[in-house]
Amino acid sequence: MAEAAEGRRGRGGRGGAGGGAAARRAERSGGKAVQLPYIQRKINTFEILDEEAMEIIERNADTILAEVGIEFRDDPEAISMWKAAGAQIDGERVRFEKGMCRELMKTAPSQFTQHARNPERNVEIGGHNTVFAPVYGPPFVRALDGVRRYGTIEDFRNIVKMAYAAPAMHHSGGTVVEPSDIAVNKRHLDMVHAHMTLSDKPYMGSVTAPERAEDTVAMSKILFGDDFVDNNCVVTSLININSPLVMDDTMLGSLKVYARAGQACIISPFIVGGAMSPVTVAGTLTQVLAEAQAAIAFSQLCRPGAPVIMGTFATSISMQSGAPAFGTPEPSQVLYGAAQFARKYNLPFRSGGSLTGSKLPDAQAAYESANTLNATLLGGVNFSLHAAGWLEGGLVSSFEKFVMDCDQLAAQQKMAQGVSVDENGQALDAIREVGLGPVSHYLGAEHTQNNFKTAFFASTISDNNSFEQWEVEGSKSAPERANAIARKWIEEHEAPALDEGIREALDEFIAQKKNSMPDAFS
Amino acid sequence: MAEAAEGRRGRGGRGGAGGGAAARRAERSGGKAVQLPYIQRKINTFEILDEEAMEIIERNADTILAEVGIEFRDDPEAISMWKAAGAQIDGERVRFEKGMCRELMKTAPSQFTQHARNPERNVEIGGHNTVFAPVYGPPFVRALDGVRRYGTIEDFRNIVKMAYAAPAMHHSGGTVVEPSDIAVNKRHLDMVHAHMTLSDKPYMGSVTAPERAEDTVAMSKILFGDDFVDNNCVVTSLININSPLVMDDTMLGSLKVYARAGQACIISPFIVGGAMSPVTVAGTLTQVLAEAQAAIAFSQLCRPGAPVIMGTFATSISMQSGAPAFGTPEPSQVLYGAAQFARKYNLPFRSGGSLTGSKLPDAQAAYESANTLNATLLGGVNFSLHAAGWLEGGLVSSFEKFVMDCDQLAAQQKMAQGVSVDENGQALDAIREVGLGPVSHYLGAEHTQNNFKTAFFASTISDNNSFEQWEVEGSKSAPERANAIARKWIEEHEAPALDEGIREALDEFIAQKKNSMPDAFS
Repeated sequence: MAEAAEGRRGRGGRGGAGGGAAARRAERSGGKAVQLPYIQRKINTFEILDEEAMEIIERNADTILAEVGIEFRDDPEAISMWKAAGAQIDGERVRFEKGMCRELMKTAPSQFTQHARNPERNVEIGGHNTVFAPVYGPPFVRALDGVRRYGTIEDFRNIVKMAYAAPAMHHSGGTVVEPSDIAVNKRHLDMVHAHMTLSDKPYMGSVTAPERAEDTVAMSKILFGDDFVDNNCVVTSLININSPLVMDDTMLGSLKVYARAGQACIISPFIVGGAMSPVTVAGTLTQVLAEAQAAIAFSQLCRPGAPVIMGTFATSISMQSGAPAFGTPEPSQVLYGAAQFARKYNLPFRSGGSLTGSKLPDAQAAYESANTLNATLLGGVNFSLHAAGWLEGGLVSSFEKFVMDCDQLAAQQKMAQGVSVDENGQALDAIREVGLGPVSHYLGAEHTQNNFKTAFFASTISDNNSFEQWEVEGSKSAPERANAIARKWIEEHEAPALDEGIREALDEFIAQKKNSMPDAFS
Repeated sequence: MAEAAEGRRGRGGRGGAGGGAAARRAERSGGKAVQLPYIQRKINTFEILDEEAMEIIERNADTILAEVGIEFRDDPEAISMWKAAGAQIDGERVRFEKGMCRELMKTAPSQFTQHARNPERNVEIGGHNTVFAPVYGPPFVRALDGVRRYGTIEDFRNIVKMAYAAPAMHHSGGTVVEPSDIAVNKRHLDMVHAHMTLSDKPYMGSVTAPERAEDTVAMSKILFGDDFVDNNCVVTSLININSPLVMDDTMLGSLKVYARAGQACIISPFIVGGAMSPVTVAGTLTQVLAEAQAAIAFSQLCRPGAPVIMGTFATSISMQSGAPAFGTPEPSQVLYGAAQFARKYNLPFRSGGSLTGSKLPDAQAAYESANTLNATLLGGVNFSLHAAGWLEGGLVSSFEKFVMDCDQLAAQQKMAQGVSVDENGQALDAIREVGLGPVSHYLGAEHTQNNFKTAFFASTISDNNSFEQWEVEGSKSAPERANAIARKWIEEHEAPALDEGIREALDEFIAQKKNSMPDAFS
């Protein structure tokens, strides 16, 4: 219960793990990839809801929680826990008095540290911070030959390598693509292994079955040590709600494993608006709020103080084809609104990314991704899954788009620094010095020379040369330039050093697990 | 001076032009193009500067105006006007006491109507409104064959036709591409003529020489009538400042013509940051503020109450190549900051657009354009030039990008509507009705059926179909789909009806002007 008492002050402070242990972890983590630290935002958030709108939506969510309730499906333990907590039980349906869930949510930390095996790559989740993580979940890949096919473990490893190389990618992610060449019941082992060995950035765990979540925690204990894992967050995992208003036994099972292990869960209603929620933004927010409150409250029943991230994943829909649409205004409005509620509840918030429905890394992909990514930053998202590589509504991991998106993440990171008005930022003497144009200009000014290396964001993808120069260099499009960078990142990858004993223990754990059961492919 | 007294209340009210004249204008304006009205924003603005930063920047701008001053070059009349107004004169250099320019700026209207010949297409410039206008100024074009070449008057007319067809394009613009097949000293006549005859949306005038500005006003008087033009804004024109800190005789000449005719000028420092201004955002804003204040104050010396738009066009720079870069964080920060000052001064604000340095309508183009366009909307820009069609740092007008950008403008227009929390928006009964998933869903709900036509932005460019369907339809990229739409818009263009007497008078004016002087090609 010390955990619970400490919860609201955040878990970050404890995570320091001073002295010998930290030094040892640093020693066995030799990663050389240049990285920007997680974003510490110095800019405002954009708010789309006024006070009245927030009151209406929260009141309606309370009404839904009290009248309709949430179904906790196929999980008698969850029902017992809710009964003990004083909720109203009707079979698998759980109803909540006004404010009950919000009261339970209060033990969740407002901010916490997710530790990486290289402490320099730890991330702070919550508050004014933003952490970018790669695309999650696609079965297909468009790798460097541009062919669309099912993903493999080799693709998976290559994406982990790219995420390791990208400076503005703060996290190694989870299922960066489904490795379909490995049995469904065993692939989580290889995925977690890849994150642990090819990268030293923080990673996500398996949620496809409770025992796979257990495996993730066990492997994390090999990597970090039992005590460290029990006292610190080292895994963040994605728990999707079956909207509308259902939690199933798979998600509840994994949620229980992680929360009880003190590990972080992103609890996200996954909503195709108009299909899984009302067709309006306010209606969708109402449902998101009801679902998220019930699920987050449940995480605190599992272990008060367990770190949790309030998530929202919403799309609009093409009413002709029924297909989800991305980068459109309404999902951005849902994001902005849900972020306001997360801030109100002092909870870290997950949403956004570089989302698109396009089949190609073309202009559609970029417009839609940029729209979502702008909302991600300005909305104050704390943890952004799918920040790079997402294509075709999440069906495809694109290597070229991964690299292009990472360039945009670096741009957003610069944007988040805000405007400096210190003496150097004011540049008053430079204006006095250069005086009048147009003959005089700033290129040669001392102030310009002193600042030019960091003053402007420098894209690694955009070509701003003259047309003639661009022609000489082969008239390449942005994805072609990205392709070359992706190749370089993968070819030049150097795995960060890892203690041999840990490596052997991980290999042994995986071999034992794989030998303990036959392959399953569904 | 009645003009001046009325200034701060806005000129919109007077623009109604009730009774016979309006009816006659409506009658002779038969345009059938479906159009969204200018945007009336219902969402907040995003602010990047806090109160302290604004104070520092304004104080520094005052210091620059007082110490360094602004050069009014090759225009003795301007110097005399400043002398009479009490500024400190030193040759062509004009210095201003603290607050002097801001005091003069106060007669400029905070909002005004720019009239179109079809009153349904009038736009309100200022306040909570946003008006989108096409790309301005490129010498080159990428038309529908994709070849990059110098623009012609045919290209010009085709872009005017596209702007007329695009529902979220509120304005016909100005130099949508340079028609290089027409003499430099005569092309303005054909450009203004194209806007007046192929469209009935509002348009911009020539600024390349004072006499061409006079021609624009004269042609506008033929179209609208002398009295109407004298009492209402029917032209908005772009006056660029020669940063740093210089106004030249060309821009001053056109500014005087338009301001004295009661027509609107956008007064924009055009800044490649690090070259024409300090390399920092705060330094650039300081210079923008000094330049804009002096130029706007000058417009009010020409005619107190003349409508004017405070403009800012800023880019960052590639410090390797020296080329300007677009869609990067720093220009967005300049935009957000300058918008805050325009609001503080109760002036309409121009900035943003769909800017990019890309040579192709590819992912680079779309990322960069979307970044700028998101800032345009959230920053509260009132008049956005270059909202569609801009490519290659403004050297190229791209037909395909024009169509793709217009789709994004429509998305922003939807975004600007904000979140409705009326009973329909709340959708509480729908949530009650659908209840629990995942079997139950919202697609068939009555509330969804009642709302689906308008609930979600429907892109005309994005393909959200299944991969298989997309393949069947030819595996097209976004620019390929845009190409087909552009062809349709141009082919199906039907010029809005125009009174035959007016058409003849315009033709006669142009013929007379063209015959009065030899062709000049520089």
